[in-house]
Amino acid sequence: MNDRPQTSDLPGPLTGVRVVDLTAMISGPVATMMLADQGADVIKVEPPSGDLVRHMGASRGGMSATFLSSNRSKRSVVLDLKTPLGMEALKRLVRTADVFVQNFRPGAAERMGIGEAVMRAQRDDLIYVSISGFGETGPYAHKRVYDPVIQALSGLAAIQADRDSGRPRMVRTIIPDKVTALTAAQAITAALFARERNGGGQHLKLAMLDATVAFLWPEGMTGHTFVGQEVAAARSQLAQDLIFATADGWITAGAVSDAEWSGMCRALERPEWERDARFRTAQDRVANVADRLALTAAVLATRSSADWLERLDQEGVPCAPVLSRSEVLDHEQIIANDLLAEYAHPDAGRIRQPRPAARFDRTPASIRRGAPGLGADTEALLVELGFDAGQRGQLMGDDSV
Amino acid sequence: MNDRPQTSDLPGPLTGVRVVDLTAMISGPVATMMLADQGADVIKVEPPSGDLVRHMGASRGGMSATFLSSNRSKRSVVLDLKTPLGMEALKRLVRTADVFVQNFRPGAAERMGIGEAVMRAQRDDLIYVSISGFGETGPYAHKRVYDPVIQALSGLAAIQADRDSGRPRMVRTIIPDKVTALTAAQAITAALFARERNGGGQHLKLAMLDATVAFLWPEGMTGHTFVGQEVAAARSQLAQDLIFATADGWITAGAVSDAEWSGMCRALERPEWERDARFRTAQDRVANVADRLALTAAVLATRSSADWLERLDQEGVPCAPVLSRSEVLDHEQIIANDLLAEYAHPDAGRIRQPRPAARFDRTPASIRRGAPGLGADTEALLVELGFDAGQRGQLMGDDSV
Repeated sequence: MNDRPQTSDLPGPLTGVRVVDLTAMISGPVATMMLADQGADVIKVEPPSGDLVRHMGASRGGMSATFLSSNRSKRSVVLDLKTPLGMEALKRLVRTADVFVQNFRPGAAERMGIGEAVMRAQRDDLIYVSISGFGETGPYAHKRVYDPVIQALSGLAAIQADRDSGRPRMVRTIIPDKVTALTAAQAITAALFARERNGGGQHLKLAMLDATVAFLWPEGMTGHTFVGQEVAAARSQLAQDLIFATADGWITAGAVSDAEWSGMCRALERPEWERDARFRTAQDRVANVADRLALTAAVLATRSSADWLERLDQEGVPCAPVLSRSEVLDHEQIIANDLLAEYAHPDAGRIRQPRPAARFDRTPASIRRGAPGLGADTEALLVELGFDAGQRGQLMGDDSV
Repeated sequence: MNDRPQTSDLPGPLTGVRVVDLTAMISGPVATMMLADQGADVIKVEPPSGDLVRHMGASRGGMSATFLSSNRSKRSVVLDLKTPLGMEALKRLVRTADVFVQNFRPGAAERMGIGEAVMRAQRDDLIYVSISGFGETGPYAHKRVYDPVIQALSGLAAIQADRDSGRPRMVRTIIPDKVTALTAAQAITAALFARERNGGGQHLKLAMLDATVAFLWPEGMTGHTFVGQEVAAARSQLAQDLIFATADGWITAGAVSDAEWSGMCRALERPEWERDARFRTAQDRVANVADRLALTAAVLATRSSADWLERLDQEGVPCAPVLSRSEVLDHEQIIANDLLAEYAHPDAGRIRQPRPAARFDRTPASIRRGAPGLGADTEALLVELGFDAGQRGQLMGDDSV
């Protein structure tokens, strides 16, 4: 997978779109990174101190891994919006833009002088995007948001609760942040389509709380979908944790249909289970799930993962190894998909990231370049916006404040 | 929230787009539901037996909750593609469409005669979308996919592993299916934008495995981002499960910055912690996390959730109750956001669902109508496509096969 270039600047589906991006942390930056991978010219506007994520967690050459994977394919401009000239530069920039995105707490953008009215005055058909944690009004609107807070409020921590103790549990990846990013990216793209077809910008608002509840709903909230028939503690669809220890690791395997169950009985060399009254129909197998899983687990513990996976696969039983993160990198299907790109970043050295997941055969999405250093594109943008050398010096002197 | 209509047919950002949707289960249907909520005319093409999800899990009036929440705002047409007339109807339908989506296993669409080449022959600028579990080629391409299999292969189950035992764990909501849906919806919308601006359709391919790995990467795979500096077992960002038992329930609370930590010490009435050498700086607090969380947990266990949340909030410490799914429905912020819609479904009665999360102020996304009964729109579509009464009888007679 390393024998050809892993970055590309071929036109993508959003080539020609310019996004002025004032977001920081994760939900906004991951959204605009998707647009940037698809060809949009995403200009990340940062204060002189930079997006905090630049300094969060594992890093190399002054670039954190999370920043690299939330801000690639973008450009970075440093503007001090507390100065009149910095604000003037932002306004000129917005006049050239299609989309403006911010994820400050509700009211903050207005106080900073970058609310919708001011920005729309620069460009009438702007798509102005406000991403918030909890919503624009209401008792939580003013609060600082962290991902676990949304997991707690949205019902996600309840869905993940221990089956035995009922203790709620967090999911250990930032689902609300990243689901908000995906939801925002889709909505922005839809607004761009509407504007391309019929003209006109609009104000798009998205709360992490709303995005997360909407995400959970299809199977996570089935117990609360029928009004008047609510279920106190709805079992989630994945109530059974289908992970089994083998002699040398962990696998998942699941038999739902009769054919799959027969396959599992054959793969595990337990033909008598097929005749067992407890497991005859799908309903029987659900009713006697504890027995079934205990028996299955005891047999699977006796041989290696590779052995069982080969047998289960031959018998048509859905199954897979449970991969560690290191093993994901080298898995034969990940390699077949040509999923992981490697490329040289000027500061961080050689880095590994997945290419954009969706493949377009005519307007490819791709990693266009590594995440930008703080203010790497300030001068070029200021020249484009018509600031003379003296003004540029004044604006860029602010960088070192 | 129930005193005004909760469905609407105002033009959305995708009004005027027609999607022919041959997907079933979750990943495809949830993707096209987002497009339908945004105004696209999504025509769900089902075999006479219908999408299996119609019959999966809790249901009322013959409609399952999951089907209702994955297929609203769409129309349903039953076509038996094994008959020449059924295939002719599909082809005529595709001639009127902008997008065609299928999520059969790789190769199946071609065998059914509905591969890209056949469909593009109907409409040259079609956006043809193939959603797969594992990818189009490679050792897993032929396998049946279930959500847990992708959780196992993508590293998600490893990220969710027990901290103590290291045992991998599943996330108990179908992250891969629904992340694929969001990723697909965004990509389809980007392809629509590209076509609107520059003309031309394309083939868009998306694998659940790729979408999930890409989703996990920004903070979940930081230990594998720097080539040559891989970390065997990267701690995920949410390695600490910040859930605390109170006297009457569960809350989450987290103090990262010095100011938040000071606030927590005040809220918990433990001023001595501020002077404790173990907790002086953010680094100290990370280094002594076990001590810090044990002390915090012991204090929080002594009073009610409401008491602590009020104090923590007053002191500026990010916090929230851990809500059960029932409590989510009535939470004051969910109500302030007007998030949950209720409307009457002709078969299933009154149902509750979140409105589309992203709010467009000029072209609103909305629940346009409840999920369709099987084949509810067959006759109307066949009339539109110019089939005469005899042909319609022949086509619709197939419904009862």
